[in-house]
Amino acid sequence: MSQKYVYLFNEGNAGMKNLLGGKGANLAEMTGLGLPVPYGFTVSTEACTRYYEDGETIADEIVEQIKAALAVAEEKAGKKFGSTENPFLVSVRSGARASMPGMMDTILNLGLNDETVKALAKLTGNERFAYDSYRRFIQMFSDVVMEVEKANFDKIFDGAKEKYGCEMDTDLTAEHLKEIVEAYKAMFKSEKGFDFPQDPMTQLIEAVKAVFRSWDNPRAIVYRRMNDIPASWGTAVNVQSMVFGNMGDDSGTGVAFTRNPATGEKALFGEYLMNAQGEDVVAGIRTPETIDHLRDTNEAVYNEFVRIADILEKHYRDMQDMEFTIEKGKLYMLQTRSGKRTAAAALQIAVDLVNEGMRTKDEAIQMIDPKSLDALLHPTFDPVALKAAKPVATGLAASPGAACGIVYFSADEAKAAHEAGSQVILARKETSPEDIEGMTASQGILTAFGGMTSHAAVVARQLGTCCVSGCKEAQINEEAKTITFSDGTVLHEGDWISLDGTTGKVYAEAIKTVDAELSGNFATIMEWADSFRTLKVRTNADSPSQAAMAVKFGAEGIGLCRTEHMFFDEARIPAMRQMIVSKNADERKAALAKILPMQRDDFKGIYKAMEGRPVTIRFLDPPLHEFLPTKEEDIRELAGNMNLSYEELKATIDGLHESNPMMGHRGCRLSITYPEIAEMQTRAVIEAAIEVRQETGLEIVPEIMIPLVGDVKELAYVKGFVVETAKKVMQERGMVIPYMVGTMIEIPRAALTADEVATEAEFFSFGTNDLTQMTFGFSRDDAGKFLPDYYAKKIFESDPFARVDQLGVGKLMQIAVELGKKTRPNIKLGICGEHGGDPSSVEFCHRIGLNYVSCSPFRVPIARLAAAQAALSNK
Amino acid sequence: MSQKYVYLFNEGNAGMKNLLGGKGANLAEMTGLGLPVPYGFTVSTEACTRYYEDGETIADEIVEQIKAALAVAEEKAGKKFGSTENPFLVSVRSGARASMPGMMDTILNLGLNDETVKALAKLTGNERFAYDSYRRFIQMFSDVVMEVEKANFDKIFDGAKEKYGCEMDTDLTAEHLKEIVEAYKAMFKSEKGFDFPQDPMTQLIEAVKAVFRSWDNPRAIVYRRMNDIPASWGTAVNVQSMVFGNMGDDSGTGVAFTRNPATGEKALFGEYLMNAQGEDVVAGIRTPETIDHLRDTNEAVYNEFVRIADILEKHYRDMQDMEFTIEKGKLYMLQTRSGKRTAAAALQIAVDLVNEGMRTKDEAIQMIDPKSLDALLHPTFDPVALKAAKPVATGLAASPGAACGIVYFSADEAKAAHEAGSQVILARKETSPEDIEGMTASQGILTAFGGMTSHAAVVARQLGTCCVSGCKEAQINEEAKTITFSDGTVLHEGDWISLDGTTGKVYAEAIKTVDAELSGNFATIMEWADSFRTLKVRTNADSPSQAAMAVKFGAEGIGLCRTEHMFFDEARIPAMRQMIVSKNADERKAALAKILPMQRDDFKGIYKAMEGRPVTIRFLDPPLHEFLPTKEEDIRELAGNMNLSYEELKATIDGLHESNPMMGHRGCRLSITYPEIAEMQTRAVIEAAIEVRQETGLEIVPEIMIPLVGDVKELAYVKGFVVETAKKVMQERGMVIPYMVGTMIEIPRAALTADEVATEAEFFSFGTNDLTQMTFGFSRDDAGKFLPDYYAKKIFESDPFARVDQLGVGKLMQIAVELGKKTRPNIKLGICGEHGGDPSSVEFCHRIGLNYVSCSPFRVPIARLAAAQAALSNK
Repeated sequence: MSQKYVYLFNEGNAGMKNLLGGKGANLAEMTGLGLPVPYGFTVSTEACTRYYEDGETIADEIVEQIKAALAVAEEKAGKKFGSTENPFLVSVRSGARASMPGMMDTILNLGLNDETVKALAKLTGNERFAYDSYRRFIQMFSDVVMEVEKANFDKIFDGAKEKYGCEMDTDLTAEHLKEIVEAYKAMFKSEKGFDFPQDPMTQLIEAVKAVFRSWDNPRAIVYRRMNDIPASWGTAVNVQSMVFGNMGDDSGTGVAFTRNPATGEKALFGEYLMNAQGEDVVAGIRTPETIDHLRDTNEAVYNEFVRIADILEKHYRDMQDMEFTIEKGKLYMLQTRSGKRTAAAALQIAVDLVNEGMRTKDEAIQMIDPKSLDALLHPTFDPVALKAAKPVATGLAASPGAACGIVYFSADEAKAAHEAGSQVILARKETSPEDIEGMTASQGILTAFGGMTSHAAVVARQLGTCCVSGCKEAQINEEAKTITFSDGTVLHEGDWISLDGTTGKVYAEAIKTVDAELSGNFATIMEWADSFRTLKVRTNADSPSQAAMAVKFGAEGIGLCRTEHMFFDEARIPAMRQMIVSKNADERKAALAKILPMQRDDFKGIYKAMEGRPVTIRFLDPPLHEFLPTKEEDIRELAGNMNLSYEELKATIDGLHESNPMMGHRGCRLSITYPEIAEMQTRAVIEAAIEVRQETGLEIVPEIMIPLVGDVKELAYVKGFVVETAKKVMQERGMVIPYMVGTMIEIPRAALTADEVATEAEFFSFGTNDLTQMTFGFSRDDAGKFLPDYYAKKIFESDPFARVDQLGVGKLMQIAVELGKKTRPNIKLGICGEHGGDPSSVEFCHRIGLNYVSCSPFRVPIARLAAAQAALSNK
Repeated sequence: MSQKYVYLFNEGNAGMKNLLGGKGANLAEMTGLGLPVPYGFTVSTEACTRYYEDGETIADEIVEQIKAALAVAEEKAGKKFGSTENPFLVSVRSGARASMPGMMDTILNLGLNDETVKALAKLTGNERFAYDSYRRFIQMFSDVVMEVEKANFDKIFDGAKEKYGCEMDTDLTAEHLKEIVEAYKAMFKSEKGFDFPQDPMTQLIEAVKAVFRSWDNPRAIVYRRMNDIPASWGTAVNVQSMVFGNMGDDSGTGVAFTRNPATGEKALFGEYLMNAQGEDVVAGIRTPETIDHLRDTNEAVYNEFVRIADILEKHYRDMQDMEFTIEKGKLYMLQTRSGKRTAAAALQIAVDLVNEGMRTKDEAIQMIDPKSLDALLHPTFDPVALKAAKPVATGLAASPGAACGIVYFSADEAKAAHEAGSQVILARKETSPEDIEGMTASQGILTAFGGMTSHAAVVARQLGTCCVSGCKEAQINEEAKTITFSDGTVLHEGDWISLDGTTGKVYAEAIKTVDAELSGNFATIMEWADSFRTLKVRTNADSPSQAAMAVKFGAEGIGLCRTEHMFFDEARIPAMRQMIVSKNADERKAALAKILPMQRDDFKGIYKAMEGRPVTIRFLDPPLHEFLPTKEEDIRELAGNMNLSYEELKATIDGLHESNPMMGHRGCRLSITYPEIAEMQTRAVIEAAIEVRQETGLEIVPEIMIPLVGDVKELAYVKGFVVETAKKVMQERGMVIPYMVGTMIEIPRAALTADEVATEAEFFSFGTNDLTQMTFGFSRDDAGKFLPDYYAKKIFESDPFARVDQLGVGKLMQIAVELGKKTRPNIKLGICGEHGGDPSSVEFCHRIGLNYVSCSPFRVPIARLAAAQAALSNK
């Protein structure tokens, strides 16, 4: 027997989403509930997959099943496809498992042709309605199925309105519309070279194929990638008896939510338009009425709708987003689904549903998309102020939040203005590590160059600062201190500017911002989440202020404190540079001695901010050349400051040049060459812990993390210096404190030999950024050039730097967990790559048995919620 | 009971090498055979390991065991340590499992002090002998145990000789020697601050510790690294009753081999010196006599020695290297071991031992070090001519063999001179891909810069051409066309020069070379090896001439044909560059169309040279920027040639710049962006195979290898174009030929997901160069800066680029083999990294079940022998 590809509405239910798509499954469910749903059938997602397997053709057996289902629907409707007496008309709608903008949406009135339109006119006694339906069908079908440009139709339609002096579409008469239909068909023929298809079955099959095709159009691919939807899912197609909202003033169509999708308020929320079909509501030509207006004008229909809405919300136990049509005073439901909502509404609804007894806490927790929380954690523009503002440019939404301030063009000036009390925005062509202080001092950062992983973007996300990067429409002149926008607007130093890092929009004016609200529903949901999760959530933080912010967001420790970020500070980089140009260990030690007190103070500040929570400190990681200038004039200046000849310094810098710095002299390799560095850093870590203990009584257990280990002997060698130095410091200070030594697992070989590494490492922290680079063999800095091709050609469907590649990188992680535990059953396991804040990666980390995830401060709440969901879904 | 650390000679045997070291085990074995061995004992290698575990101290229990063994030896000798009547004297010698130059060798006459020397004088009636022994002991002990510089002693000794007008050491009288002893002791005290140790037991324990210490001196570490000897093995110490070769003219000492170690000829070969101790033989002050001379002067001792030598060779069934001492006419054996031999001798001896019935063929095969074969495969200098020549500089021995020719300073001139019939040597500061033709035309290559993995070195090894790289003593001026050597010698273009790529020596003169001899013993051994091995041996070759050479060396196919090397040819690179600067697929196709016929001809040449053997062709791999110039003047010139503005071309080149080109846009990523490249290459591969089939009847089965795959979808995407193009070509040509599509496994993720990759790949070839880089996370180009520290600090003991890292990279290989076979049980498996020619890596490949190894042509015989040994040792 051949496979079943087509399901009548009474053959399905809400549980069959994978097969019938969301829309189809819910139409079937509503049918089962006895609600007024126009009858029809669903062509399954498997038919879509089959379509692609068959080289984008539709198999005969599927066509046969469609015909059979259509016959049932005709029977039920008492109408017949193509009948010149009582013609059967249908709508065709796509419906994937997950709602997907970008795909073909809807074709209405399918089945109309030159003959059936006459029958429809006769049958309804409404010729105007019949031809209006026909012209709509011709336009929609031509546009989405036949790829005739919509503008061609608009031109004819608008021409006719002008010719007959009609202001509103509804002013056009039946005769006008007949003329338009003829003009449409003539244009269609001249565009396509053949007549507009008259055979209803041809229309239907072509429409089904168009839906399948639209699964793979570029916008759909982009959307899938952004939302982790695999290409293999496919879409279903729903074919449904037409009901008409445009049959006169007793007909209409609308959409409504059972609760307010913006705020979560419990009240019906929606709008409708009388004498209209679906597309009129969104087209915006006529202004729809609010759903409340229906109560006043047609109470019976309104009450019926309220009753159905209530049934649906109780049935689905979630806020519903419904589409309906009124045909000659009779209400039909065309769709229901869980409604999309803002993050704030999501929290409100989740809390309300629990309070109303409709959902348990664990169910409520699983209803919230963790990623959506991000929007709640950053300042936003005051909605009223925003409404009045007009963006002058759009860049990449590199780090979320809204910011407003006075623009400066150098890190130093931004810092000075900030210290003088100004709100500051830093605008740079692109940022570099030397800009770190200016970036910290700014409300927001704008760059003209660089992508989502540029220095500005990465640091801004780490700082939780708003950032718009790679804004090509902004020409930034750092010398002249101006920004010239593509629209001609010019800003000078001292002018106000506003940035929206969530949308990438740039405003050449001051817009009031509103701070994030972390109490109320947010606090309630976080409390529930914490009660379910078993995975700890730490943060990546390099400064006391970041640490304090992360604690506010619920961080339970620091999983990654990068010590090198501390050295780009203007006051410190000279000592670092002196260390690098040292000719021997003694000179190096002298330079390091200058860095020691600064580093110790950093650690003290961080320990205090963390109030006794664990702190993992990663030792110096980047290649040394990152601390040295590259431009000739900067090298000359530095040489002067350091009492070196230009040639000497240039030779040192050239000597540090690397072909592949990613895989060069960095991480623990630095401490193997220069153990003095590890000694100094150990001293700073331990002295700081002892002093904080003495000053505050806080019991600090520092976790020293040696980066880039690929062989246990590397770790053993560096650990030797760490242990020896720690012992010495504790003797000097007369106080013994506990501490741990562990390693990042970021090199494939460390994962493969984790049983050996664990003989020395007391903890592993997966550095999945580098681990991903090396497992895939591509450099994040360079992959931007070819990954777009990978997405376009469906080789990759998600960004492995955003979401753990469970098949490859994840396998290495599992190997490391297994081998590490074999050697040291209680080894502490965490992750500190950027994946630590990605929900699907958090779920993976939970599943393979990590103890904690660590992420940037602003992702801590996301990780807390994701960890709770992971615990619940793996119960 | 405490562990046994000390073994008397009658407690051991030759099988206990790991515990007693080679020397100790053989002394025990000879003792067991009843041969005249001075009695003694061995302190085991485990005592050495314990010494290091105990922080370089010697445990009391070991000292006690030494004392007990000493007592037995004293008993046996009827002498007593420190006795003023009949003092017991011993020699102390190191002895690791494998003979290791660089370690402390020998201390003789230990036990002598101011009192026992008198007893020795009295006992032997030879005061001169006694004091000569004492002064030798003081000097050796001070030098190797107490680290007093040897020069201090030489000064005193030479001063005394001058003072007393003695030309020969033997001219010094007992009184002179007493005076020297006193001067030695005084100097010792002033150097060390304490008296020369008089207590024999102190002398003994200090000497044992000195041997243990010498296990870890820098020279020993370097030697171990070069010879794959783990630091954990440790060394043993042999303590043995002294016998004296310096007791007068009826005494002597010598060394001899049972066969000629240079040629393998079956005849006693050695030399000795009468009235001398061991060090005199090597010191070269007196010229030793050949062993034949002993027959004429002392036939009894000679006959006894011949008898013993025969017993030993028959017992060990191998050529022996023996040390002996004659004390007052009595022969003592001090050591025997398998003798080191030249590669030629090794083959001769192996063949002879089989012919003499002493060894089976499989045993003979296992006696030959595969690496040593290398020396036989390249031209060498005529030994007579070489003796008369004097090197002017030494560089790195980058690619073996001897070469002699006229020096040229540019690739073009070298090529032209070669075409005009000259023997040519190319001298360059460093080479770049554009030099490839000049390099191919040269007998040898000399560079001033660059290391063992520089372009010159890698390409020369691939070509089998002699190369001396990084010769700092040669200042090469390419403009002036001169080489100025450190010693002042200047060579101009057109002068003769000779290079020895095996030693790194450079000669400013013509030296006659002798070609390699591949018949005779070499052919016999290879034939035997082939009869045992199961692993196939292929070669890495990019040209017909390389392919032909490899076939001569026994290659059974090409495992890696790099197609990009073909494009650096002067005639071809313009088309390649045109392809790179193309603005769209059509322009790219036009440029590729120019490359197609050249590439097709390359493949035809290679197929013909391989005479139907399988050929694996790797598609374009390097990042495109490698094909473009980097210097401004070159860019300007090229822009002119290409009708582009400088700015345009510069922008293209800048756009191709990558932060980490190793992990950038290369390999299959190129064909994903530009499928036209894979199409063109497929067309060339298939058309060439069809044409060769038509022209010669050879059945070619090309193996198309897609590089740098990390995900099966990458392979599937590119394979799609390959299969489609192949089909099209076969239709066009009207001939169907078989071909395979497979991939390199060189990215960790490909290994980890090999089950998926194997759904598309018909074969895997392990690209262990890149796989090693990515598994370790270090770039070969940069690792040179920090790996020396890794060796010095014992973090790495061997070069993972030379020898497969079985623990990490090897684990990935095993995972890939296992997963690949799960999906496709008969998947063809090979290796094409440089490891394919390394014997220990070949053994590993055999063990994990690969079908073949592929290596550069000159390593093919090495791999054949190593594969045979692997098969035999894993039987």
